[in-house]
Amino acid sequence: MTAFNAVELIERKRDGGQLSPDEIGWLIAGYTEGAVADYQMAAMTMAVFINGLDADELAAWTGAMLHSGDVLDLSDVGLPKVDKHSTGGVGDKVSIPLAPIVAACDVAVPMMSGRGLGHTGGTLDKLESIPGFRTQLDAVRFRKILHDCGFVMAGQSETLVPADRKLYALRDATGTVPSIPLIASSIMSKKLAEDLDGLVLDVKVGSGAFMTDMEDARTMATTMVGIGASHDVEVTALITDMNQPLGRMVGNSNEIAESIEMLKGEGPADLIAVTRGLALEMLAVAGVDEPERRIDAVISSGAALERFERMVAAHGGDPRVIEDRSLLPWAPEHHELVAQRSGFVTRCDARQIGAAAMRLGAGRTRKEDDVDHGVGIELVAKLGEEVVEGDVLAILTHRPDDIDRVVDLATSAWVIDDEPPPALTLIHERID
Amino acid sequence: MTAFNAVELIERKRDGGQLSPDEIGWLIAGYTEGAVADYQMAAMTMAVFINGLDADELAAWTGAMLHSGDVLDLSDVGLPKVDKHSTGGVGDKVSIPLAPIVAACDVAVPMMSGRGLGHTGGTLDKLESIPGFRTQLDAVRFRKILHDCGFVMAGQSETLVPADRKLYALRDATGTVPSIPLIASSIMSKKLAEDLDGLVLDVKVGSGAFMTDMEDARTMATTMVGIGASHDVEVTALITDMNQPLGRMVGNSNEIAESIEMLKGEGPADLIAVTRGLALEMLAVAGVDEPERRIDAVISSGAALERFERMVAAHGGDPRVIEDRSLLPWAPEHHELVAQRSGFVTRCDARQIGAAAMRLGAGRTRKEDDVDHGVGIELVAKLGEEVVEGDVLAILTHRPDDIDRVVDLATSAWVIDDEPPPALTLIHERID
Repeated sequence: MTAFNAVELIERKRDGGQLSPDEIGWLIAGYTEGAVADYQMAAMTMAVFINGLDADELAAWTGAMLHSGDVLDLSDVGLPKVDKHSTGGVGDKVSIPLAPIVAACDVAVPMMSGRGLGHTGGTLDKLESIPGFRTQLDAVRFRKILHDCGFVMAGQSETLVPADRKLYALRDATGTVPSIPLIASSIMSKKLAEDLDGLVLDVKVGSGAFMTDMEDARTMATTMVGIGASHDVEVTALITDMNQPLGRMVGNSNEIAESIEMLKGEGPADLIAVTRGLALEMLAVAGVDEPERRIDAVISSGAALERFERMVAAHGGDPRVIEDRSLLPWAPEHHELVAQRSGFVTRCDARQIGAAAMRLGAGRTRKEDDVDHGVGIELVAKLGEEVVEGDVLAILTHRPDDIDRVVDLATSAWVIDDEPPPALTLIHERID
Repeated sequence: MTAFNAVELIERKRDGGQLSPDEIGWLIAGYTEGAVADYQMAAMTMAVFINGLDADELAAWTGAMLHSGDVLDLSDVGLPKVDKHSTGGVGDKVSIPLAPIVAACDVAVPMMSGRGLGHTGGTLDKLESIPGFRTQLDAVRFRKILHDCGFVMAGQSETLVPADRKLYALRDATGTVPSIPLIASSIMSKKLAEDLDGLVLDVKVGSGAFMTDMEDARTMATTMVGIGASHDVEVTALITDMNQPLGRMVGNSNEIAESIEMLKGEGPADLIAVTRGLALEMLAVAGVDEPERRIDAVISSGAALERFERMVAAHGGDPRVIEDRSLLPWAPEHHELVAQRSGFVTRCDARQIGAAAMRLGAGRTRKEDDVDHGVGIELVAKLGEEVVEGDVLAILTHRPDDIDRVVDLATSAWVIDDEPPPALTLIHERID
């Protein structure tokens, strides 16, 4: 590979210029190997944060990240391979019912997920509520579970996209995390390394999401769809609401229990609507006929739940949790938040509820923290629902600690008014 | 000192916000000691490069740099203390005649200078042409020479402004060198550490200067004057021309010889004009009466030359070079560039001549390189002068190497035309 001068490339991006694909390839490979120093990459990412990357640069940057390590070859799977990625929210357990539903419709889902950070939860943490469930798999086991169950729900392999791990840690220490091109290339490089035919993005917008502004969400969605196109992977994005948590459960064990309910044909309407919307997009990308009917069929027949059970066992988890939720870990204490007045719930703030759940122990403030799977918040009253003074708004499941600070934070998430709020839109836009 | 969070400060500057004096103090001290990592400072300096520092931030940044190490206390000198700083040029040997002239007018000049890099020369390199001349002095010797001679011409002490040495090396590796606030704070912190009453800046503008644009030169001058005001030091700036080299000599030994000529009342008119202009400003800042007359007197009486001789001896140099220039090192070979046509010199490009001198060995491309004191370029024909085809334009003094590439580069620095160029302005503006 041609060698370039790191300082010249930094200077060009600093001054708003464009880097060539070869230059970007050299930069990312050099950084991964250590030939480009941390401080040089820190200056470069700050310049990218401020001056951006154009579509060609973004395609090259993502491709260079993707090729910094192994790339899966799943060509022997024999089914269309489609994954879903969410930009993260509160109560967002969608992946857990979604993947077995789509797999039961004969679409392979080689899903690699992340952990929660801050007020948002993570699929791996939730799955690890199931006793024995292992999320770190070697390549052989990953393939075997995908083959046997039609889907797999693992952590990111260490050998895939090593540049992203290194770059993310650097960005975290240098104030360059919330950059649309850097986030989009990070997400897309990891997803492209899964050897997908298609990808559906759930771009969350609202108080509990990374993006609180519709315009930013649209830019993020368009950027990732564009990166997909430049790498010949069909990508569709739904922009979905994250002003209040999705479903009624926020935590880990409780979100697993709610996901199982949905696979049994029950569960809250908003979770069902968003999960079905994403499932339809995944089946459409995979070219499955009559997708609505197929989804109904795999839920009502129990085929999706059976796939989930098989997957849990294959990951080393105890599948009896499906019939007996008491086998999941639960904290012993409960605290009820009650309505101070009668009226309609006009706010049920996702960010505050996510932060309250984190303080209970359901989430982590630093990457290296552990989470407590047994604590969480059940939302009894959600947006638009009518309550009478003294009604229970939420139930906090917690350890026998002093939870006054959490109670204050959680309580302030609810606003009750005389008039009902405007009707809630769950899926704002579709971008492809 | 209150501890801050480096990432929060980087994020604020990234988004165009302002840092408080306490925050800047913590950042610079933390970086000097290692508590703030190189990669964090790299991200911060890129954010500063792009988003700038306002006047309050700049005063605090400079003050924090200044206090990162020792600060001289020259209160026992008993004379006003004034220094001059040039932003760097080609043939710019002004400091060498200027300092003894000003000292002979009873103004103390505790001068700390730098080395050449790229196409520009450095005062220390020039002085080291004198056999035995030492530029690295300990504090005791620095004070003694200042006391005995009224001026001293040394390298920057290792214990003064350590933050600047560390930050400059980082900026050099991360593409953040040419930033007006970072350059201005670097220069001013080092000058303020000299315990000055006043400072005169020679801000060069033109092809051979760091700033080729008048507007940038004005911003640089205004910025440094403002920093001086915020630290109660009177600072005046002259913006002087650097489109062609100053004087007729570019190199090291030859620039010493030309400086000695000027101290003897001879030498080229442009060097005399700029040196006198700066001397007048230094004497004005120091409150010396009848400065014009004093300058004439110390040159015509030989008092300035005698100061220079005393200083050379005090630095360990051989003062006999003053009467016998053959005691300076000289390369053995000479090559004449001749005019290819008759007419007026309309260009005598400082940058190209500086680069040619560097290639001869008079300058360095990397900080760690040595310079050859004996090589250089004598400019026989300068801007506006009339030449006849075959006249000598310049004489290259060089080692017995192949100098074809240098000859081509040097030759292209001259343009000869039928019409004379517009009259040259040496001192463009004065800013205080």
